Amino acid sequence: MDKKMNILMFSGDYDKALAGLILANSAKEMDMEVSIFFAFWGLLLIRKPNGAREENKSTYEKLFANMTPKNIEDLPLSKMNLAGLGKKMLLEMMEENHAPTLTDFLKGALNKGIKMMACKLSCEIMGFSEDELLEQVEIVTAQDYLKDAIESDIQLFI
Amino acid sequence: MDKKMNILMFSGDYDKALAGLILANSAKEMDMEVSIFFAFWGLLLIRKPNGAREENKSTYEKLFANMTPKNIEDLPLSKMNLAGLGKKMLLEMMEENHAPTLTDFLKGALNKGIKMMACKLSCEIMGFSEDELLEQVEIVTAQDYLKDAIESDIQLFI
Amino acid sequence: MDKKMNILMFSGDYDKALAGLILANSAKEMDMEVSIFFAFWGLLLIRKPNGAREENKSTYEKLFANMTPKNIEDLPLSKMNLAGLGKKMLLEMMEENHAPTLTDFLKGALNKGIKMMACKLSCEIMGFSEDELLEQVEIVTAQDYLKDAIESDIQLFI
Repeated sequence: MDKKMNILMFSGDYDKALAGLILANSAKEMDMEVSIFFAFWGLLLIRKPNGAREENKSTYEKLFANMTPKNIEDLPLSKMNLAGLGKKMLLEMMEENHAPTLTDFLKGALNKGIKMMACKLSCEIMGFSEDELLEQVEIVTAQDYLKDAIESDIQLFI
Repeated sequence: MDKKMNILMFSGDYDKALAGLILANSAKEMDMEVSIFFAFWGLLLIRKPNGAREENKSTYEKLFANMTPKNIEDLPLSKMNLAGLGKKMLLEMMEENHAPTLTDFLKGALNKGIKMMACKLSCEIMGFSEDELLEQVEIVTAQDYLKDAIESDIQLFI
Repeated sequence: MDKKMNILMFSGDYDKALAGLILANSAKEMDMEVSIFFAFWGLLLIRKPNGAREENKSTYEKLFANMTPKNIEDLPLSKMNLAGLGKKMLLEMMEENHAPTLTDFLKGALNKGIKMMACKLSCEIMGFSEDELLEQVEIVTAQDYLKDAIESDIQLFI
């Protein structure tokens, strides 16, 4: 199949990231070309574990890097409080059904060669350098994102 | 018009569901073909009223089914607290302007023959069986969603 | 470049509005045609400063107009509480990196001639009249939005 999907992953919520990565993996399994552009909170999904660097960070950037979850499994739900449903409950339900975790889907995406891009401006504002991000990730501009999106058959903002 | 719109309804928020269903109804009135794929919290929009089944549900699935709003009019806003604006206020403003409710727009979508699909993986995780969902809803995979989305002129993630 | 992007700006969150307006400005700089359709909370982005009118507003509409931020710089983040990161911190980080504010990007969009549309139904429900919105904004229906979106190469729901 000669089709292409482009996802702009703005959210850093566990459930939304799960949705985005499930779609990305499914599309790649159908032989679609898939790109994900991580911006704003989405950057929290592609940090290298234990890759945090303190040098060259301002006080706010250090605080931000330290206060946000370093392990993607610790990211919050977009709806923590919907009728009291907590994230623990969702994870239990996923486990009961042998559903893969967010980490599994991210590894799948990396192994399958899904194109991973990080938003340059977001990286600058949040103080993330390229060597703090997963090796497969390339830092690109909003215009690079747009060029990729224009060529895609499906574009989603998540 | 030989055009097609595909909506991925991830959210279970009253206001976002309203936006999605207004677009779906409007597109159908313009003779566009319209599909909606309900995933994650979006499943809360297409439960059969009084259709809940306890059998075959795990403890967490029972809790989830019981704790989440059974009537779609009871779904929360995405911005409950924006400047203190509550949902009651939005509903009053809608009523003053004789705007249809979410229930009206959902009925409209069903009557107009808009294609309704539920995400298989989400149903499994949340423990919803096909007979708990509205009759018009078909349970399909993420790949089925993607096939439908590829053929569409407009794709939105809501 | 003979390409076109259409954004449905549903959100009134500072960070999401920033993402939408950065994309819109970037696309316009690449000579793409760009339209933004502001609906629901998105209307809060295009109010005329000091343009509020009390006449013809119901009690709820007056309350709504007064309780919501009149200056777009006062709009909240979509993730106020993610790990305690507050909006002040994001603004400090933006300033450190000499990143433009939301106001700058909105001005840029207006100056560049990006097409600005407001959702008619949302305006009616929230009680906003055309003269309370920025001069460049035209009030149109959901069907007008759909016609514009169909002709676009990229459609995003933000």
